[in-house]
Amino acid sequence: MNGEKLLRGRVLSFKREPVAIDDTEALVFIEDGAILVCDGLIKAIGKHADVTGMTTDKVETIDHRPHLLMPGFIDTHIHFPQAQVIGSWGAQLLDWLNTYTFPAEAKFSDPDHCERIASAFIDELLRHGTTTAVSYCSVHPQSVDAYFNEANARNLRMIGGKVMMDRNAPDAVLDTAQSSYDDSKMLIEKWHGKGRSLYAITPRFAITSSPEQLEMAQALVSEYPDCYMQTHLSENHDEIAFTLELYPKARDYLDVYETYGLLGSRSLFGHCIHLSKRERAAMAESGSVAVFCPTSNLFLGSGLYDEAGLSAQGVTTAIATDVGGGTNYSMLRTLDEGYKILQLQRQQMNPLKSFYWITLGNARALSLADKIGTLEAGSEADIVVLDAAATPAMALRMETVDN
Amino acid sequence: MNGEKLLRGRVLSFKREPVAIDDTEALVFIEDGAILVCDGLIKAIGKHADVTGMTTDKVETIDHRPHLLMPGFIDTHIHFPQAQVIGSWGAQLLDWLNTYTFPAEAKFSDPDHCERIASAFIDELLRHGTTTAVSYCSVHPQSVDAYFNEANARNLRMIGGKVMMDRNAPDAVLDTAQSSYDDSKMLIEKWHGKGRSLYAITPRFAITSSPEQLEMAQALVSEYPDCYMQTHLSENHDEIAFTLELYPKARDYLDVYETYGLLGSRSLFGHCIHLSKRERAAMAESGSVAVFCPTSNLFLGSGLYDEAGLSAQGVTTAIATDVGGGTNYSMLRTLDEGYKILQLQRQQMNPLKSFYWITLGNARALSLADKIGTLEAGSEADIVVLDAAATPAMALRMETVDN
Repeated sequence: MNGEKLLRGRVLSFKREPVAIDDTEALVFIEDGAILVCDGLIKAIGKHADVTGMTTDKVETIDHRPHLLMPGFIDTHIHFPQAQVIGSWGAQLLDWLNTYTFPAEAKFSDPDHCERIASAFIDELLRHGTTTAVSYCSVHPQSVDAYFNEANARNLRMIGGKVMMDRNAPDAVLDTAQSSYDDSKMLIEKWHGKGRSLYAITPRFAITSSPEQLEMAQALVSEYPDCYMQTHLSENHDEIAFTLELYPKARDYLDVYETYGLLGSRSLFGHCIHLSKRERAAMAESGSVAVFCPTSNLFLGSGLYDEAGLSAQGVTTAIATDVGGGTNYSMLRTLDEGYKILQLQRQQMNPLKSFYWITLGNARALSLADKIGTLEAGSEADIVVLDAAATPAMALRMETVDN
Repeated sequence: MNGEKLLRGRVLSFKREPVAIDDTEALVFIEDGAILVCDGLIKAIGKHADVTGMTTDKVETIDHRPHLLMPGFIDTHIHFPQAQVIGSWGAQLLDWLNTYTFPAEAKFSDPDHCERIASAFIDELLRHGTTTAVSYCSVHPQSVDAYFNEANARNLRMIGGKVMMDRNAPDAVLDTAQSSYDDSKMLIEKWHGKGRSLYAITPRFAITSSPEQLEMAQALVSEYPDCYMQTHLSENHDEIAFTLELYPKARDYLDVYETYGLLGSRSLFGHCIHLSKRERAAMAESGSVAVFCPTSNLFLGSGLYDEAGLSAQGVTTAIATDVGGGTNYSMLRTLDEGYKILQLQRQQMNPLKSFYWITLGNARALSLADKIGTLEAGSEADIVVLDAAATPAMALRMETVDN
């Protein structure tokens, strides 16, 4: 058949969250496996001997043995206009925004800059094995155009949206409540569902959105219930205090968003480090998603994400890089530091859970498990190839692992 | 002149610890610089135009522009026999030792294994820019022979020693108080000062050394005062509690080592996370060195090293990878996570301090600043070349840095 391609290798995909290191029923692992791909979708997966029987001798075959084939990684929180501030030193959240980030984002008024960085940014995602990302673009509509144009040119399933921010930042990165509504609406109509693109309504966070703007975000969420909503929540103590000054009637930080109807199963809240029991309960009840950003939380000294506590209260948790507060595009490096944050709290992330998290786990958090995050037949064919001996240090280490 | 070599590039070396990001008096930076090397020593450093005048046209020149030439990095705490347990998941210190580490170290009874891993280990150090390391070898004298043989074959300034451990571990990695003395003495005579090798008397830690063995360590330190002494201190709460059970007369953990005369300016104490004020004062008074191991402290969930507190009390602090509890051979990655540990405590590591720390800072902690850690004329010519645009993500980031 036209366009068919057979990938051969060790195959790993998850069916549900593994609850222990020996919970092999949570996964599919095939030592000599194959994935048959056709027109961007996975047509079949199984033992190589079985899958080859489903096609002809002429099918293009790529033999990746002994490497591991997995679903592409999913990054649930990243800032595309921050590619050039990654690793900016010395500040915690609010200073970091003012000193480094807002000036960098101001450059995205220039469409040429948008295009150039969008291309480089998506290069970086793919180079690190990330095939779907949920991005904050800048306040400028042209940044969203550049992002989705680049994603569509490569036929990627990317999610993103224009940040809405109408106060507490330099003029160059501010919109107004009305213009943020108009621009977002225009961008949703233009991009949501175009190719593989999906739109996220993106009020940056309560500090940079007036009540009027959050009303506009509420209107958008109500008009476009199949779009995502993303914002930041409870990352830093100074941020929390300032938010509660700005919204004095709110019971707590989450209540600001709750008041404007921004909770729900398509709502992604970045960070969620310092939540109260009530906030966690409200997140769980609404199906809202908490997004853990390990390298960022450490780099900005924000604090330790309480994965066990959130899960115990029933909150859906996703994991993400948060570049440029995060320090690396790699979801594997993100897991490394995520593991460490949990270790400091006597919580354990087992390796199966970690690989589940950046694939099916994040896909479920995005309500996209029917499309991405697994290698099941019918899924979109976003596949990464992992070499467990990619560096000499890894090769030396792998000698001691039973094959 | 025979054996002369000229390295051209941007040159950076430190004269003392930088106290702020604009403390340029603490360093030497030459935009178009050169280093003249002869017979393994730095003969001259300066502007390229000046240094070329000191030699002939025929000198071999290596043009590294626009890259940065710096002193080789120094790793002050690493375990050579743990190259194959790096990244072993799920345990804190004591379980991690018993489950992963002691079985791996037992393999070093085989001299062939020692030689093969020593070669791979030193490859990794050099690949990551580390030109001097202070290593724990295994309990077996043959591991020390393999380590120094490999170091001498490459003319490297390496420090290391046989671990002394006579209890609370499997038989395969135990010595006795007497054999640990005899073997260490033999190894000191054989290796200390041979080529560039220096010996570290290495009682692993109080848990695995009987009082009789610590007496033997004391005797060795007394007989060989120009050797180093290295051990572990106050890494983990369970470790501390067990130590105080084993040494019930000790005032605190450090007091165990103090009682046996193991403190001093050539004494390196790995971790030092949970020290009391008294312990810090005793470290400072004796000139003992505290060694910060960021990736290990996070990976094993040991806790947050209090750099500011230790420095405020006058303790000399060094920084190290602690592979294989540490998760990466790179001193740069070590600084990344060290930065993050300090950020979580509202302490700031400025970038100048960080590069100082892994060069001159660590050299001073080892009392070796006259030999390594700087590019001053007369220093040993251990030089690394750094490319600030080594990856596409770094190249993109560097566009915004004034050159």
